[in-house]
Amino acid sequence: MYRTHTCGELRIANENERVTLSGWVQRIRDKGGMIWVDLRDRYGVTQLMFDESKSDPQVVAKARELGREFVVQAQGTVLKRYSVNDKIPTGEIEIMVDSLNVLNASKLPPFMIENDTDGGDDLRMKYRYLDLRRENQREKLALRHRMMQETRRFLDAKEFMEVETPVLIKSTPEGARDFVVPSRTNKGEFYALPQSPQTFKQLLMVSGFDRYFQIVKCFRDEDLRADRQPEFTQIDCEMSFVEQEDILNTFEGMTKHLFKTVRGVELTEDFERMEYADAMKFYGSDKPDLRFGMPFVEINDLAKGKDFKIFDSAELIVGIKVDGCGNYTRKQLDALTKFMQTPQIGAKGLVHVKCNEDGSFKSSIDKFFSQEDLKAWAEKFGAKAGDLLLVMSGHTDTVRKQLCELRLKMGSDLGLRDPNTFKPLWVMNFPLLEWDEESQRYHAMHHPFTSPKVEDMPMLDTDPGAVRANAYDLVINGVEIGGGSIRIHDREMQQLMFKHLGFSEEEAKAQFGFLMEAFEYGAPPHGGIAFGFDRICSLFGGSDSIRDYIAFPKNNSGRDVMIDAPSAVDNTQLEELSIRVEVKED
Amino acid sequence: MYRTHTCGELRIANENERVTLSGWVQRIRDKGGMIWVDLRDRYGVTQLMFDESKSDPQVVAKARELGREFVVQAQGTVLKRYSVNDKIPTGEIEIMVDSLNVLNASKLPPFMIENDTDGGDDLRMKYRYLDLRRENQREKLALRHRMMQETRRFLDAKEFMEVETPVLIKSTPEGARDFVVPSRTNKGEFYALPQSPQTFKQLLMVSGFDRYFQIVKCFRDEDLRADRQPEFTQIDCEMSFVEQEDILNTFEGMTKHLFKTVRGVELTEDFERMEYADAMKFYGSDKPDLRFGMPFVEINDLAKGKDFKIFDSAELIVGIKVDGCGNYTRKQLDALTKFMQTPQIGAKGLVHVKCNEDGSFKSSIDKFFSQEDLKAWAEKFGAKAGDLLLVMSGHTDTVRKQLCELRLKMGSDLGLRDPNTFKPLWVMNFPLLEWDEESQRYHAMHHPFTSPKVEDMPMLDTDPGAVRANAYDLVINGVEIGGGSIRIHDREMQQLMFKHLGFSEEEAKAQFGFLMEAFEYGAPPHGGIAFGFDRICSLFGGSDSIRDYIAFPKNNSGRDVMIDAPSAVDNTQLEELSIRVEVKED
Repeated sequence: MYRTHTCGELRIANENERVTLSGWVQRIRDKGGMIWVDLRDRYGVTQLMFDESKSDPQVVAKARELGREFVVQAQGTVLKRYSVNDKIPTGEIEIMVDSLNVLNASKLPPFMIENDTDGGDDLRMKYRYLDLRRENQREKLALRHRMMQETRRFLDAKEFMEVETPVLIKSTPEGARDFVVPSRTNKGEFYALPQSPQTFKQLLMVSGFDRYFQIVKCFRDEDLRADRQPEFTQIDCEMSFVEQEDILNTFEGMTKHLFKTVRGVELTEDFERMEYADAMKFYGSDKPDLRFGMPFVEINDLAKGKDFKIFDSAELIVGIKVDGCGNYTRKQLDALTKFMQTPQIGAKGLVHVKCNEDGSFKSSIDKFFSQEDLKAWAEKFGAKAGDLLLVMSGHTDTVRKQLCELRLKMGSDLGLRDPNTFKPLWVMNFPLLEWDEESQRYHAMHHPFTSPKVEDMPMLDTDPGAVRANAYDLVINGVEIGGGSIRIHDREMQQLMFKHLGFSEEEAKAQFGFLMEAFEYGAPPHGGIAFGFDRICSLFGGSDSIRDYIAFPKNNSGRDVMIDAPSAVDNTQLEELSIRVEVKED
Repeated sequence: MYRTHTCGELRIANENERVTLSGWVQRIRDKGGMIWVDLRDRYGVTQLMFDESKSDPQVVAKARELGREFVVQAQGTVLKRYSVNDKIPTGEIEIMVDSLNVLNASKLPPFMIENDTDGGDDLRMKYRYLDLRRENQREKLALRHRMMQETRRFLDAKEFMEVETPVLIKSTPEGARDFVVPSRTNKGEFYALPQSPQTFKQLLMVSGFDRYFQIVKCFRDEDLRADRQPEFTQIDCEMSFVEQEDILNTFEGMTKHLFKTVRGVELTEDFERMEYADAMKFYGSDKPDLRFGMPFVEINDLAKGKDFKIFDSAELIVGIKVDGCGNYTRKQLDALTKFMQTPQIGAKGLVHVKCNEDGSFKSSIDKFFSQEDLKAWAEKFGAKAGDLLLVMSGHTDTVRKQLCELRLKMGSDLGLRDPNTFKPLWVMNFPLLEWDEESQRYHAMHHPFTSPKVEDMPMLDTDPGAVRANAYDLVINGVEIGGGSIRIHDREMQQLMFKHLGFSEEEAKAQFGFLMEAFEYGAPPHGGIAFGFDRICSLFGGSDSIRDYIAFPKNNSGRDVMIDAPSAVDNTQLEELSIRVEVKED
């Protein structure tokens, strides 16, 4: 037997017991004839002790040959420690070792196996198996484990059935780019890896499964960004005989359950809800961070017609009120303007109005606006003495996006975005369609199976962009963690939708014929939601990086640098698959 | 709200309540001015009732327009039924409907949505979403759901951490054929889909995760048989600081937990254990069905040297004793011989010895063997009057395989293979290597990471085929449901193993360099097991077909006939992936 206890288990109550531990050497101190070794495993750290004056000299000699990260098995007696270490649960005891067995030696690791490591990103990716030895990394995956168990526990109790849908499916040109898999037996044909199990979960509803869920890998062959991975995990759910309200209630319940069981956070209040149109109008984003206020205030009515050409020619003049920052210095204000002018944001400038303590105003546009004018602004913003107004102008969509960035920056600067405060929000009634400049046609904003609001249907022909969908996102702290919709369950409606999305009848049939046929055999009303599991884990962990919450992530070029994948494949294997590599130089 | 209750929920206690139900029309009876409709959902069936003399004529007219599999919403009052149906939990009540709403019509399904359907395999595969409406099909997936939940519940309680390993990994020529995925960004290179997460779970042990599990999709591009699918699911587990005994105990516990919680079967006894060599010797198989006896008895010593050339030239003479079948007729015995001579089995013949009630013997080889000889046989077999001996001869491996088939057939014929009796068995100490005629070299029987028995190591050079591995299979009722091993955790040993498997040093490094490098940084002793999840589900369900336990299976050519995958892909998409289709005619 390799061990009687783990390295996190022994307490003073075990004093004088004979025990065997196995683990990794974390640290060695050799001083005044005494050797102490911190032995580490997943469960904790226990101190081993060797005493030149009492221990077997051979055992002491062996201990002196140990190095960091050696794997050892130690047998000995539990003793009370002279100097208690109250930072660890095993800190009251140590093991007086009488038998030591090196199970495996270790080369010196390329970086320190400590929470504060000296390893850079690339090195830690290459030696991910060593990076994962660090307690804070392992804790992230332990959180992910708990999230998975609690998600299933909740959904199982609500009679959701976990069903595995296939990974080798059919390629469809709609949506993001598919990964494809050549078929050997069906020559010249390809499977695709699923971007989501969307059609399968809808078919399960047609099958009468009533409530489905799956924690499932999905795949998108997209150009990668920091928070995107070619393979990612979804909590995928679907329900029958439900209206939007039923879905929101169910998954509000799930989210609260996860916060309570995994984070110990009780979210007692109903989640806030906001129309998509309002989210855009008041926060410039479909995923507003509501940990702080600063809603947008539009002042076209007050700011136009004062001979300030920039405003007069602008589609929208809009600003935020920053509480208590009326004393910002010129330097601070210049820094804000500079931030807004960085290429990523691309604003031309930033107007400020300081609400002075004496009731007067000082602005960057005093030339055009009187104290009276500015007082009217301040009233509209609800500003009091000591506040700062920051105002921008331009094309509506652009200026909203830019002001959103400014609002988030002010929130961060003022410490209003505490990662341990959680503000959930349902954003409701997304547009059904969005115009795509490149292809000059409308695309489904969510996916082609989303149902439109019945009352907006007449606009499908006249003003498609204004049609709202029965679609909703769950946003927490400015992060979209899930989204879904009530689906179309009527064949004719689905066919109409494909038509509006520019599918020919043949295209629709070739790609989704099975689903439309299924709708002819009694499809129930249904809807669902999918959560980005990697992202929800990083949110729970208080981190911005989803990569830390994935055991073996890929880098920004889609490579696994640890195993060195992707890689070349034998020609004979490709021949069997009826394909040939043909690299074109750019 | 679509419903106040499900179709499986209402009881006599709900009498006189106003309720709303939604579901599918299962059956309609229209008789003497009364209409009864069986309304079905996942939770059960409830009877709706319409009475011409009492109901709103418009509602009655609507009811008359319903067809099978229409989706309807019905509102009404719960009444006590005149004639109770005690076959269903809702059988004491019916709903007097006063409002009926057709949510979706249905075409006539291509087969009956009944447990005993009239739909053939192909039709049911094409309309799998309708096939899954049948209660017995849905129950199979409900069992799978419960198996998943209980597996996780057990392993979570034992501190196993669920970790998702990547799906886009690296292709290795070892083992079965990989599915590959062309990379767009790394031109000319390919990912592979995992045949199992083997190397990743070993790396997690190197990371100190101590106990890992995952219920995970795996992929093999092999020629398919009835019980094989290109994508299948494994319960994949690994543990550190363990010996074989720890693993067997843990997963014996898991198996018992599953039987108890999912099937209500208490397996109180320790699982039987058998050496691989004994399984082959006594049952001609590495997965013996122990629901019945009939072990093989070898009689070379008794049967040779009697001038029966077939025996004299045979490597092995071996038989089984069939209790109480000494009265088999000539016709019955001829049928057995014929069975053994079918091409799949390919035996030349079958020798029988009847142990008559009067103590005499009647055999098919009386010419060569005296009553005295046959008496000695009977004694060796432990046969009593009324028993039948069935004996075969030939090359050891061949004759064992053939006799194994005969033993299983006799077990089936005699009703000794009850699908509701479960006999688990650990088969231990598999050979490390097996000779492959085609490539003229040894292959790893399990995989190249399996550790050899220390005491057999010296034979690696002299008699590699005789070296035993620390490898074990869990067999239940003749079905291999899981297998695993204690792994190599020493770099040099792993290198030696690759050498014996015919890898050059470069090949080993190119394919598994990351694992061998990981072994240099303190790899702990570890081992694990993987269960075939589809198969364990079908075993629990008492079925031979794994396909019924997969929501959307593929057919024997690897096609999903429902969605019609695989399929052709645009040339532009292939160009982006730097590949070209090149089908060679056979």
